[in-house]
Amino acid sequence: MKLLYPTSLVLDVQSLEGFSVDLQPYDVKKEIPAEHLDAEVLVTWTNTADNLKHAAANMKQLKWIQSLAAGPNDVLGAGFDPKTVTITTGSGLHDATVAEHALGLLLASARKFHEMRDYQTQQKWPGHLGGPQPDRPKNAFTTLRDANVLIWGFGNIAKTLTPYLTALGANVTGLARHAGVRNGIEIHAEADLPSLLPKVDALVMILPGSDTTKHALNAERLKLLPKHAWVVNVGRGTTVDEAALDAALTNGEIGGAALDVFETEPLPGSSPLYKQKDVILSPHAAGGRPQGAEGLIAENLRKFIAGQELKNVI
Amino acid sequence: MKLLYPTSLVLDVQSLEGFSVDLQPYDVKKEIPAEHLDAEVLVTWTNTADNLKHAAANMKQLKWIQSLAAGPNDVLGAGFDPKTVTITTGSGLHDATVAEHALGLLLASARKFHEMRDYQTQQKWPGHLGGPQPDRPKNAFTTLRDANVLIWGFGNIAKTLTPYLTALGANVTGLARHAGVRNGIEIHAEADLPSLLPKVDALVMILPGSDTTKHALNAERLKLLPKHAWVVNVGRGTTVDEAALDAALTNGEIGGAALDVFETEPLPGSSPLYKQKDVILSPHAAGGRPQGAEGLIAENLRKFIAGQELKNVI
Repeated sequence: MKLLYPTSLVLDVQSLEGFSVDLQPYDVKKEIPAEHLDAEVLVTWTNTADNLKHAAANMKQLKWIQSLAAGPNDVLGAGFDPKTVTITTGSGLHDATVAEHALGLLLASARKFHEMRDYQTQQKWPGHLGGPQPDRPKNAFTTLRDANVLIWGFGNIAKTLTPYLTALGANVTGLARHAGVRNGIEIHAEADLPSLLPKVDALVMILPGSDTTKHALNAERLKLLPKHAWVVNVGRGTTVDEAALDAALTNGEIGGAALDVFETEPLPGSSPLYKQKDVILSPHAAGGRPQGAEGLIAENLRKFIAGQELKNVI
Repeated sequence: MKLLYPTSLVLDVQSLEGFSVDLQPYDVKKEIPAEHLDAEVLVTWTNTADNLKHAAANMKQLKWIQSLAAGPNDVLGAGFDPKTVTITTGSGLHDATVAEHALGLLLASARKFHEMRDYQTQQKWPGHLGGPQPDRPKNAFTTLRDANVLIWGFGNIAKTLTPYLTALGANVTGLARHAGVRNGIEIHAEADLPSLLPKVDALVMILPGSDTTKHALNAERLKLLPKHAWVVNVGRGTTVDEAALDAALTNGEIGGAALDVFETEPLPGSSPLYKQKDVILSPHAAGGRPQGAEGLIAENLRKFIAGQELKNVI
């Protein structure tokens, strides 16, 4: 049996040895070479659409694709036959790095690092942001301590992020398809949005991209947020109506937004978001660094050989 | 007995009631009025030097000063008689807010929010900072996960900060006057600096200001840091030799610096630090918001009345 692994990231290939499997590297930006089209297992990471399309059309013995991305969108679009090819994702490999970035954006928002930077580049001291100041003033997002943070999309990233926030003193609530209690956090369903949003100091969006999540945060819901609330998006750009967000910022309906994902990426230079004073833009930098990929591949490889159900099957 | 409390912050005065004490507000920016010069207890917060000097010269019955600042420097400089006046500080009231700011600066440094901001203001997308990227590349500070963080000055702020860092996956080591193990963290003495500094990804300075800590981080020690290491200072500006830091940055001897305190504050517009690409400047904004002041005042007031030893006596 042959497994193709990508050279688009540094993998500790030694930790995949010990199975009776021929491990072969391949370039994700080119067509897979003829001598490797007989592989049964393909590990993908940042493959080009052309690479995947060619693989779908020509890898006749392919049984399993292990993507290292959080979602399967690129693989699904390439035309693999779902009857013969099992697809597993890299869900979980990005939790820590995305959660860390989200925490960084929340603190940058609360502590106004973006505004400090604007003063710095003018060689000015932003005295109004330092020195003695009120502790947790009303109608301002200045600290995570006692802040009400609502996480919309309560999967593994949210579960990783939550303990960081509670350690800093935040009150965390979740929003997901199904209400309940997860990891000690109260999770509400979408029907509760009208009562939840008015209490929010920071709204963290970690929704996946799909038809049902498109513009989940729209003009109507933005209006329900307090005027000082910040929106942080580390999920998918399509889940926020950017035009409505820009209008809400212009009209002072919300406090600000820290965005790592956008409806169009790279965000076009013509986007008005670049010029919003209280917008922090990050270039889809939260994830993009799978952590523990070898562990997931090895676990699924063992299960695949043993005929057991794989982890992260879509 | 009379206690004067400052109107320079919002105190829940009700939570100080219940003792046989006359609670009176006063303005910290003016001389204390004649009718209140008979107070035995003075609570201070951001008092002017003139206010304190006048109080020292005229409050003949004063027995105890409760400062809400972390350190007693302003009170000590005013000329109170240490034989008759007990001074207690607000040590502990600033731990959470300074630790939160330090965490924010560390994440901003690792995730390069300052560089993203510079692109944003030019309506440009900093593609090199986003998208697929190596996980924890060598010779770069890109995440707290598995990063070696050395905290120099291991008091209560460090003890608050450490669990945030370890939750994010950092390896935390401390440096203090006395070696040992505190809160599960290995603390080294200064003699170990030559072996510690070369392993550091981020050095967090939380030293108090004093003659012995002046320029603790000097040219010689900066040279021991790896070229990618970041320096974060949320202690006192005098503990870092700013000229040496600027030279180290210019010469590429360190990765960057995130500074909340400076040798002169406000940092003069002529400081070359404003123009350093990888310097993040924050206007002494980490603390300045005492948290839980009423609890400390009430505890010490009870002890004072009972003739017990006060908390945070200098």
